[in-house]
Amino acid sequence: MRWWGWGEDSGAIQLGDHAVALLHSELDLDDKGGAAPVCIDDVRVPDSALQAPARRALEQAVGEEHVRDDRLARVTHAAGRSYPDLVRLRAGDASHAPDAVVAPGSEVQVAAVLAACSRAGVAVVPFGGGTSVVGGVEALRGSHASAISLDLTRMVDVLDIDQISLTASLEPGILGPGLERRLGSAGLTLGHFPQSFEFSTVGGWVATRSAGQASTGYGRIDELVESVSCVTPSGVLKTREVPATGAGPALRELVVGSEGALGVITATTLRVRPLPEARHYEAWSFSSFEEGTEAFRIMEQASASPDVARLSDESETRLSKALASSGSRAEALGESYLRLRGQPHGCFALTGYEGSPDDVARRRKRAAGLLRAAGAVALGQRPGRAWLEARFSAPYLRDDMLGRGAMIETLETATTWSNLHLLHRAVKDALVGALAPRGTPPLVVCHVSHLYRSGASLYFTFLARQEAGAALEQWRAAKQAAAEAILANGGTITHHHAVGTDHAPWMTEEVGELGVEVLRAAKERLDPDAIMNPGKLLPSRP
Amino acid sequence: MRWWGWGEDSGAIQLGDHAVALLHSELDLDDKGGAAPVCIDDVRVPDSALQAPARRALEQAVGEEHVRDDRLARVTHAAGRSYPDLVRLRAGDASHAPDAVVAPGSEVQVAAVLAACSRAGVAVVPFGGGTSVVGGVEALRGSHASAISLDLTRMVDVLDIDQISLTASLEPGILGPGLERRLGSAGLTLGHFPQSFEFSTVGGWVATRSAGQASTGYGRIDELVESVSCVTPSGVLKTREVPATGAGPALRELVVGSEGALGVITATTLRVRPLPEARHYEAWSFSSFEEGTEAFRIMEQASASPDVARLSDESETRLSKALASSGSRAEALGESYLRLRGQPHGCFALTGYEGSPDDVARRRKRAAGLLRAAGAVALGQRPGRAWLEARFSAPYLRDDMLGRGAMIETLETATTWSNLHLLHRAVKDALVGALAPRGTPPLVVCHVSHLYRSGASLYFTFLARQEAGAALEQWRAAKQAAAEAILANGGTITHHHAVGTDHAPWMTEEVGELGVEVLRAAKERLDPDAIMNPGKLLPSRP
Repeated sequence: MRWWGWGEDSGAIQLGDHAVALLHSELDLDDKGGAAPVCIDDVRVPDSALQAPARRALEQAVGEEHVRDDRLARVTHAAGRSYPDLVRLRAGDASHAPDAVVAPGSEVQVAAVLAACSRAGVAVVPFGGGTSVVGGVEALRGSHASAISLDLTRMVDVLDIDQISLTASLEPGILGPGLERRLGSAGLTLGHFPQSFEFSTVGGWVATRSAGQASTGYGRIDELVESVSCVTPSGVLKTREVPATGAGPALRELVVGSEGALGVITATTLRVRPLPEARHYEAWSFSSFEEGTEAFRIMEQASASPDVARLSDESETRLSKALASSGSRAEALGESYLRLRGQPHGCFALTGYEGSPDDVARRRKRAAGLLRAAGAVALGQRPGRAWLEARFSAPYLRDDMLGRGAMIETLETATTWSNLHLLHRAVKDALVGALAPRGTPPLVVCHVSHLYRSGASLYFTFLARQEAGAALEQWRAAKQAAAEAILANGGTITHHHAVGTDHAPWMTEEVGELGVEVLRAAKERLDPDAIMNPGKLLPSRP
Repeated sequence: MRWWGWGEDSGAIQLGDHAVALLHSELDLDDKGGAAPVCIDDVRVPDSALQAPARRALEQAVGEEHVRDDRLARVTHAAGRSYPDLVRLRAGDASHAPDAVVAPGSEVQVAAVLAACSRAGVAVVPFGGGTSVVGGVEALRGSHASAISLDLTRMVDVLDIDQISLTASLEPGILGPGLERRLGSAGLTLGHFPQSFEFSTVGGWVATRSAGQASTGYGRIDELVESVSCVTPSGVLKTREVPATGAGPALRELVVGSEGALGVITATTLRVRPLPEARHYEAWSFSSFEEGTEAFRIMEQASASPDVARLSDESETRLSKALASSGSRAEALGESYLRLRGQPHGCFALTGYEGSPDDVARRRKRAAGLLRAAGAVALGQRPGRAWLEARFSAPYLRDDMLGRGAMIETLETATTWSNLHLLHRAVKDALVGALAPRGTPPLVVCHVSHLYRSGASLYFTFLARQEAGAALEQWRAAKQAAAEAILANGGTITHHHAVGTDHAPWMTEEVGELGVEVLRAAKERLDPDAIMNPGKLLPSRP
């Protein structure tokens, strides 16, 4: 992962001329706005505060070579990949760098690290792929004088594959592509494809209650966890490997989503599926977002949903078309076709099916019938294939936009079907209301991408001219307005980005004062010295 | 509910002559074994220990007429409906009767009752339908001098129905038939049909993590809870009404299955479905339990399962046939048919589909194809219809068997597909090993009735001659042997009967010492005076 942005140089992509022109005109970008990242040698990293005895104890726990405090190690573990993270890193601010990066190779070593840190009073920040977009991995110290980043990427073993029960037992540090490669060679897939897929880990997915692009079909990670082991400062919390149980409250559901604040997920058994032999992705147009969501609701409540189901609102459809536009004759023809079908300003939708050829054909026929009956116009497979090819590329475009002086951020929520449009409108209005008065009126676009019988997710992207010298304040104003609108209008503060530092202030409103108290009680029992990922998940005490 | 047994006199059924003869010969029953329940006036009920000031406070909280301490009220709230409960009640032992039965009419009144009991040091035992089979409702006092039963059956409002999002917000005291009637008049169903359906409540289902006969299709109650409100002595824990969230550990999953030990569920929003227009139930035969479970696994992992899927092992098939036998010509023909198809000692299976006529036909065709390919022989719809008609009647037969001097008890577990037969064998062996040396060799029969992608449930019924004068010791020996076998062989201590008192001693092995500690921490925060349902869910401190 590039220390100042997303992914690897080899994967980087830039906006086309047409898209750049569009952003300049829509966002009123400055020609001179934006700046390249500073050179890594110019990044400001505080001196390591780790005391020598603590360092020696950590070296004993994991081996000398796995305790690093060089500049590159500390800077690459200083932050996740949220917009404020990138703004700070590009400007050379690594003030939240850990004092050292410690990489255990086993559950036993994780326990030894936690014991050493409990004794020495060192905060521990679990770190998988470092792709958090909510401040989940910055090395806050809490009440301690120093903090380490606990890098789990040495723990990459596939512990077991059960071909009969379709489960795979995994260490936490396995990255998405490696996991799919290894499951694939056994004829299996997890089917979990968050946008961060290439750089995020199994343990991170479980710790943050991740959802992937195909979770409508394959299920969220919460639904794929058969069992989990979590090493805490008080010992190991391990749930039984059974498909279901009636034995009291679900402790599995306490560990899933615990974001490193209770302990470190050192192993998990996930439910997998046979590798699909066939894939069919195709696109549709609806005359309006209302028509599209109603079609998706009907399809989902008929148990007919595809594995991937996405629906852009009018503004996202318009923006996506413009960003992808090359001004070609084929595009113009496509536009004419939609005008002819009465959808000049329609909404783009995508459906994707995976499985055996029979399965895909059968499911596609049924869903397509329901969608057509609800007003969908078929756009064929070409846009579906294009989406599949580009499905992990958006974060690279964000780096390009930052370099051009744009703010671009995403946030997401979920609500019931009956409340979906109220919430959609409220969040858009809140973002416009927060940013327009600052002289940076935003483009706010949205899509639905996870369907449930009772409701759906809403995923917002907002873009505006970055406020020179006040980029973080500008972001905070937008974030606060959106969060308040979400909670006042029946949404959840996050559908799949997790809590981290960014959403922690809203956890009291999300789960109630007593809910926060119960989480604190669990934390105090499992982590009595409060070394685990301080400042994340739970709001600071009033 | 009859104070000494199941249901109502009008619903009672008895074993036929053929079945009685079979039980006598198979279990070596005594002709004089068994006894009728004592007369209610002869039941031994301890004097009420509720102090006058506490009683006055409770009367203020709910109204004088809703605080009862008459004999009938106390005896009907003294126990659930497990085998040991019935043995004790029939013999006139109501030593676990509550000191009073208090019936609040609203969430506010529940909170007032908890406040009064916290102040006065009175234990509170939430009571829905009283059908617990694990000792979940007996009025244990814990460290307190008295205990009340908190009867929730006045709280029966349907608070809201959302036809768009397919959810229903419900008070906890609604019984199964009333719920289905009221949802049905809105064209909806919950699809939750535990065997206790006629006498158990919405709140009880959620509090005990219930699964119903159609949960393979409709989902366990845990999967149907959109949100839940729980009044605890420390305040109200209320989860957001959203289809999914990534905001940290799932507090909903802490309340679901909390068995009244954390607080009282006062409202829940459940996910419902359109009332099915069509139903198709049919039966199958497999040549062996192994063949049948393999067929079910293939069907489930192909996402082709029906809504109801049951498979009896060889011994349950044999026993069910014998119990239902009338010696008719039709039966003899059926037997001949199966002999001809090479399944003289086959296993009975049942599949049931509910939905629109198209849906039922489409799903049935697909599942039936997979089952036939895996060896199933079709037995047609008649046995399916017979099962549907008798689906809630087994507990009545139990009363009849108790009257004839038989012990009959059920227990259940779940495990992965790859471990299913090991566990099946181990539990059977354990029950035989515990009971045969006592001179009461059991009949142990089993079925699979809940399918998951990664595994299935196992539901055991065991019958033996009741040990005169030592019925409870005999039961305890069997229960202990089975529990130890389950936990030593990869099962869960309970799949859907909950923990109560009966499974509490095994919770440490089920969730680990640290798991128990975390549950205790949550309890201490929510219920600092330990008034909520003492002795249930959590093991006593060592």
